[in-house]
Amino acid sequence: MSGGAPTHESDLSEKFRRLIEVGLALTSESDVSALLSRILFEARRFTCAEAGTLYLVTPDGKLRFSVVQNDGLRRSEVLVGNASQPITIEISPTSIAGWVTGTGSTLNIPDVHDLPGNCGYQFDSSFDLKSGYCSRSMLVVPMKSPAGHIVGVIQLINARRPGTEECTTFPKEQEELVLCLASQAAVALNNARLTSELQLAYSEAIHRLARAAEFRDHDTGEHIERVSRYSAAIAEALGLAPSDVSRILLASTLHDIGKLAIPDSILQKPGKLTAGEYAEMKCHAKMGADLLAGSENPTILLAAEIAFSHHEKWDGTGYPRGLRGDEIPVAAQICAVADVFDALCSSRCYKTALSSEEACEFLRKESGRHFSPQVVEAFFAVIDKITRIRSELPA
Amino acid sequence: MSGGAPTHESDLSEKFRRLIEVGLALTSESDVSALLSRILFEARRFTCAEAGTLYLVTPDGKLRFSVVQNDGLRRSEVLVGNASQPITIEISPTSIAGWVTGTGSTLNIPDVHDLPGNCGYQFDSSFDLKSGYCSRSMLVVPMKSPAGHIVGVIQLINARRPGTEECTTFPKEQEELVLCLASQAAVALNNARLTSELQLAYSEAIHRLARAAEFRDHDTGEHIERVSRYSAAIAEALGLAPSDVSRILLASTLHDIGKLAIPDSILQKPGKLTAGEYAEMKCHAKMGADLLAGSENPTILLAAEIAFSHHEKWDGTGYPRGLRGDEIPVAAQICAVADVFDALCSSRCYKTALSSEEACEFLRKESGRHFSPQVVEAFFAVIDKITRIRSELPA
Repeated sequence: MSGGAPTHESDLSEKFRRLIEVGLALTSESDVSALLSRILFEARRFTCAEAGTLYLVTPDGKLRFSVVQNDGLRRSEVLVGNASQPITIEISPTSIAGWVTGTGSTLNIPDVHDLPGNCGYQFDSSFDLKSGYCSRSMLVVPMKSPAGHIVGVIQLINARRPGTEECTTFPKEQEELVLCLASQAAVALNNARLTSELQLAYSEAIHRLARAAEFRDHDTGEHIERVSRYSAAIAEALGLAPSDVSRILLASTLHDIGKLAIPDSILQKPGKLTAGEYAEMKCHAKMGADLLAGSENPTILLAAEIAFSHHEKWDGTGYPRGLRGDEIPVAAQICAVADVFDALCSSRCYKTALSSEEACEFLRKESGRHFSPQVVEAFFAVIDKITRIRSELPA
Repeated sequence: MSGGAPTHESDLSEKFRRLIEVGLALTSESDVSALLSRILFEARRFTCAEAGTLYLVTPDGKLRFSVVQNDGLRRSEVLVGNASQPITIEISPTSIAGWVTGTGSTLNIPDVHDLPGNCGYQFDSSFDLKSGYCSRSMLVVPMKSPAGHIVGVIQLINARRPGTEECTTFPKEQEELVLCLASQAAVALNNARLTSELQLAYSEAIHRLARAAEFRDHDTGEHIERVSRYSAAIAEALGLAPSDVSRILLASTLHDIGKLAIPDSILQKPGKLTAGEYAEMKCHAKMGADLLAGSENPTILLAAEIAFSHHEKWDGTGYPRGLRGDEIPVAAQICAVADVFDALCSSRCYKTALSSEEACEFLRKESGRHFSPQVVEAFFAVIDKITRIRSELPA
């Protein structure tokens, strides 16, 4: 900082400064597979390594090939498998990455083809043989969490002199820097995994809640899933923000949750409902809203809105409140189109299914009466997607 | 690193090295209020600041007093409010912290009682007046996220010369270090908040799912909540790990979820069930397990186990599978005791409530017959807690 020509030590401060920036970037990334690529990319940039591999330790103590990057092969990054279905390759504990995992120590190897005889690990040349690449220098560090658990290994291959293609070895001072980076990466990875697990658990709990309602209403089948995905497609076509689209995807699964409160005698009646029974059936909108009321969670609140208002009509003739036009929450306008379209296309014990064309015709006719004209327009803008969803989740 | 006497620059490297460690510690902390205390503590340790305050920016753009630490007052840390009910104090934009929030700039003030006249901010002496403390030097930095959002302000008060009580000012070089620390803190805080929101959302979704089952079984009231809390108390008494206890707390709320599949005519029958009806009622265990089956989420899996086996009996005379002894999953053994105890103490349309003493007598008598002896013993070990829960959630 203050005065003095650049020295080795001030270079080091500069590197630590950059390391902190890298740490911030890693910690901010919540997508696990993007994070893994970024970790390896930043570690390579830090060390001018031409290639690299990131391995993760699996729950059963094996090592999993997770990201491979190689500028020398003039190929873009190879992600081995993906986050949900990764390819797990068992790696021997006497391999270089296996040794680093087992001992928790860093290896800085000038030449993998010239290892000391008694070092306890050996170079696996199978990737080089397959790809035609020639590995030489390696810097291999464990990704260690603050609690001391090794969650993975970063293997940097073929150091280059900065700004050149010239081969070199990894300088000793880089060991500590990369080890720090690997620790930051370990923490970022733990956090991203935790977030992703929680997100999944949350979304699953909502889906189970939605399915609970189907339990008694045997007709619906995959109805809930289709309505949810139609709604998201329409929301996207309307230009809603991605976070709102995901929220609608989840919240709309709960649109009929209030049916839990409707007696079997009405819900499962094979014939036509009497006026009194129909009035009771209509209560499911309000009951659903009640079941979901009082949440501080925006998705549950949106679900309450959808449950309450998905039987409202654009011209004010719907129920339970007789809202009209934009008094009806947009998500409920969307869900109404998705729900009616799907009901029309499905057979029930008391009716046969319309063809997709007939159902579309109905939506067109009811645009501005039952349905919001913009939502109907958005529906037709993504009709191909709707058809695809229908074929993936047949009635 | 290699060679050379310690210089200003190598001190700086050392400080960055420590900063990275601090960043790791912050990023690993997922409890929001513990994290806030830690942020301020680490920032003070870094700068030898005798006191400090951490403010957070609220969603409506105000500043909230969140943590106050002051070694000068010989008092332990003061946490203003707590994470769920924080005290929000509106702070003027012309205050020091308000100015830093508004401009995003750092303030390094040698003496708060000697501010330039036209600086645009002023020192609020109310805390000093109330506490008798005397603020002088201040280093005030914004907590900025990588996207540039200011999420809070760290205000460090009264620099001390390291290892002494001697007053000094904050050296210029600390500005950057503390700013880095504040950025790390901002990211850690965002992550911790996200995790905590997701955790809450998840737990809420499970509770809503549990309550959905109550919707038709009007007798149960607060039964589900009580059984869940009794179960957790017993699990704790049995010495289960805290993570298992939390899992049981959540999973046991779903023990009767299968009742969703039981017809109204049986579920809501005021009189005694016929043998055929009783057989159908018993299906709720299997139905619950089916509704929750196939999850990868450990809590839902545990809930499926509890739903399936909470009517098994220790001597093998229970249903649906007639498991005996430790064939019955521990969580289901626990839930059985909690469920029966609560049912005995509650009145139903077809029976009056037993007194707590009579219900306890029943558990004792059925230990080793209906119930696991260890679980009954654990129940009595925490009977005071059970009684407290009953009084907080009356039947």
